[in-house]
Amino acid sequence: MTNPVLVEATRGPLVESRHRGAIAVVDAHGNHRAAIGDVEAAVFPRSSVKLIQALPLVESGAADAFGYGEEELAMACASHSGERRHVAIARRMLEKCGRTPADLECGVQMPSNLAAANALVRTGEAPSPLYNNCSGKHAGLICLARHLGVDPKGYASPDHPVQRAVTAALAATTGTSLDADVCAVDGCSIPTYAVPLDGLALAFARLVTGEGQPPQRAAAARRLFDACMGDPSLVAGTGRFCTEVMAAISGRVFVKTGAEGVYCGAIPGAGFGIAVKCDDGATRAAETMMAAVLAALLPMTAAERDLFSQRLTRPIASRAGVKVGEIRPVAGLVDAIRESRSSIREDTIRPADSSIVPTARSRGGG
Amino acid sequence: MTNPVLVEATRGPLVESRHRGAIAVVDAHGNHRAAIGDVEAAVFPRSSVKLIQALPLVESGAADAFGYGEEELAMACASHSGERRHVAIARRMLEKCGRTPADLECGVQMPSNLAAANALVRTGEAPSPLYNNCSGKHAGLICLARHLGVDPKGYASPDHPVQRAVTAALAATTGTSLDADVCAVDGCSIPTYAVPLDGLALAFARLVTGEGQPPQRAAAARRLFDACMGDPSLVAGTGRFCTEVMAAISGRVFVKTGAEGVYCGAIPGAGFGIAVKCDDGATRAAETMMAAVLAALLPMTAAERDLFSQRLTRPIASRAGVKVGEIRPVAGLVDAIRESRSSIREDTIRPADSSIVPTARSRGGG
Repeated sequence: MTNPVLVEATRGPLVESRHRGAIAVVDAHGNHRAAIGDVEAAVFPRSSVKLIQALPLVESGAADAFGYGEEELAMACASHSGERRHVAIARRMLEKCGRTPADLECGVQMPSNLAAANALVRTGEAPSPLYNNCSGKHAGLICLARHLGVDPKGYASPDHPVQRAVTAALAATTGTSLDADVCAVDGCSIPTYAVPLDGLALAFARLVTGEGQPPQRAAAARRLFDACMGDPSLVAGTGRFCTEVMAAISGRVFVKTGAEGVYCGAIPGAGFGIAVKCDDGATRAAETMMAAVLAALLPMTAAERDLFSQRLTRPIASRAGVKVGEIRPVAGLVDAIRESRSSIREDTIRPADSSIVPTARSRGGG
Repeated sequence: MTNPVLVEATRGPLVESRHRGAIAVVDAHGNHRAAIGDVEAAVFPRSSVKLIQALPLVESGAADAFGYGEEELAMACASHSGERRHVAIARRMLEKCGRTPADLECGVQMPSNLAAANALVRTGEAPSPLYNNCSGKHAGLICLARHLGVDPKGYASPDHPVQRAVTAALAATTGTSLDADVCAVDGCSIPTYAVPLDGLALAFARLVTGEGQPPQRAAAARRLFDACMGDPSLVAGTGRFCTEVMAAISGRVFVKTGAEGVYCGAIPGAGFGIAVKCDDGATRAAETMMAAVLAALLPMTAAERDLFSQRLTRPIASRAGVKVGEIRPVAGLVDAIRESRSSIREDTIRPADSSIVPTARSRGGG
């Protein structure tokens, strides 16, 4: 199945680039509220399931045992931008469980936040693993190891007790068996398991409703969702989609990005879980796809809708700051998601400018 | 027509992301040496045609009148990384024609070269337009205006004599009529005109052979190709595809990147022009597509082929530096290009792992 074009980048009068993908919106019983493209194809969720990966930290009692509050829980679910507060909380998470940044197995990364990166450049300080966007998740995994009474060393390996707990949570909530044949290594060195897109959406629907979940899991999920939605600047960072959308529509939506064009989310009020994947891995398109889902299915005030429209269709500017094009959902996508009850065929949604028209030309003209 | 998947990004045992696109390899008579995907669809060439945009600078006599040597000519064709030498030559180009960086209409950009950007951050110096990757092209346009005896001001506008000359060169070499309905604004504020992909390849074939070109144009093109292939570090920068490929295969290939997944090139020895476009605009895929064309059609020594194989299939590494996947042409692509004499249908080339297989799962497991 060829996924449909869902997002287009225009320049002047024409479409310049196109992104294909799939969108799954599912309720806690596994019913598809919207299904566009091949929602059964397995995708690597990458960082989009950090909330699920943080479940054992809370369910096990580790978070409470080491005095983790809402900030620590939000950071355990975060792909942060390496801003000052992110780094400070990640450091504190390690301190609270008696460990240090040297225990982090996520590798080193410069902050994605430009001001934070420039601050390091100015002082000549090399970034520690605390600046890695996954440092909060990793600190949480180390905390879990401490609580389980096992050596944190090797906690990133699939066979470490910590990863076995994380994988079990992902398998159970997505309803998927996760074996070596769908296992790869994430950018931060822990395993990532390919899961059908609608399985990811199902997991978030189950967790956001608690439907069919053991009480401890339902309670843990609730605490993690609340922590993220309550302090969205921790989950990503200044100016980023996750942070801005959760801040703009406070408490009524959860969204979480993953690398290579994956986005997951949940609408608590409707009991829906959401998962999108851009075929080519582009973040700009995954964000637009998620924005289209929310525009279709999340009730908003007029003011929220105004704010949100800037995320749905974003300008492309020249370096002189002039708008020269835009990134937008293809015409009909928001309606298709709103009206969809089952799979949508490619020919039911079309880009407004369905292709760049060949120009008149004569080969002899050169 | 849906373009085929040409490039895939793997992670562990599975394909994680896929890039579709089209490839045109054309001789100077317009015969398709290879045509994959919709090669007649028009694409914005963006910076991939800077060599064509520099033709009037040389043909008009402006370059000679103002004492531009090979360095200046290479920089007129460059999308440079803002390294020290790039900035110095761009400055010199303006000085030679009696103008200053204040005349540049390209806007401001931080260097894409990390060391160069960090050097600016450390000193607190704000980047001038000289650091814009297009500053050499813009300096050349200003030089052309001076030689034509017109005010450079507004040289970025479609109706300025400089842009009319540039557009005429693009129209003539591509055999395309370029009107307002295919005109948009590039990132550096000058016009970019959508041209059929095989028209772009045709232009580079004509220019690299001189076939059917007026003597002045053929000579100008030869000087520009020689300048770029002779000093490829000016055309892009340290570690970049254009620079490394032209340096590795010295004098026998010309390649030039453009934004949104376009790449153009030429193989002088074979008389071929090349143009590729990744549908979704990804540079990583356009580079791989160009690498596949060269692997198929450019004779190389064993040593060159060894070096080049690192550009054809590139590792994806975790932040800890471990290889976790790769970006590569789909299986059969290089052979398909080598054997192609006409359009290739989608089903003739296939990814090795043609899709991520759905995993076994039971919905009741959660």
